[in-house]
Amino acid sequence: MPNDPYKLTQYACFRTLTEDQRQAITQLAREECFYTGHILFQDEKPGTHLYILTTGEVEVLYNVGRKDPTQVDAVGEGEILGCSSLIDPYRYSSTARCLSKIETLVLDADPLRKLMEKDCQIGYSIQKCIIQMLLDRILNLRLGK
Amino acid sequence: MPNDPYKLTQYACFRTLTEDQRQAITQLAREECFYTGHILFQDEKPGTHLYILTTGEVEVLYNVGRKDPTQVDAVGEGEILGCSSLIDPYRYSSTARCLSKIETLVLDADPLRKLMEKDCQIGYSIQKCIIQMLLDRILNLRLGK
Repeated sequence: MPNDPYKLTQYACFRTLTEDQRQAITQLAREECFYTGHILFQDEKPGTHLYILTTGEVEVLYNVGRKDPTQVDAVGEGEILGCSSLIDPYRYSSTARCLSKIETLVLDADPLRKLMEKDCQIGYSIQKCIIQMLLDRILNLRLGK
Repeated sequence: MPNDPYKLTQYACFRTLTEDQRQAITQLAREECFYTGHILFQDEKPGTHLYILTTGEVEVLYNVGRKDPTQVDAVGEGEILGCSSLIDPYRYSSTARCLSKIETLVLDADPLRKLMEKDCQIGYSIQKCIIQMLLDRILNLRLGK
């Protein structure tokens, strides 16, 4: 990621932060591109990264019984993936695999958690955004969208 | 609610708070009991209260098309209801109706929001708990539970 905190304002989560706070986020974030079939993270593995999807689509898979992982959801632009990396026990609770080429902002979860604990205004702001996104996801799941 | 902040430790959300912080929450919380059929809140109405369900079951309803509200989910003990009362534009995004007699902790959303903004450690702590609960709800919805 270019060392430009202003670029972060394109992400709703960081818009309300001060420039100093965005500068701190910039240190642990980078823009990355992944191709169809790439596995972003796996169920039960340590939650090392949080992803904000800029373009493309990602499928969410679960191990149901002893079968191969089953697709249970698909998420697109603007979604945040890997939220469980911020919540104790800091392990992913699903597997995420790219359904198309994607562009994403990748944040290192461990320093992000520490930053959010140290500056709880950053923590509060980012979590508010995550809650909004999770509520939208629940609405869509309930309505079968 | 008895003016006893210690009682709040029975709720996971408040366990990590200091006694002073719990005291502040006590001022805007009370235990209430509602009966089968009681509507806790309605879709699109201003989000005035947050509910932590202690016992019983609540159905979640949506207006799908022009029909009567349809049940799209049911939630039970330990669940937090009315989370959208904490998120801009502070309106409920569903209707919640008691499926049984319920016991619940009722929190006044407006002073709670102000408290969470003013003391972002309280805000951060409660949000973390809400995120955990929403992630569990998403997991259950995805797995069709």
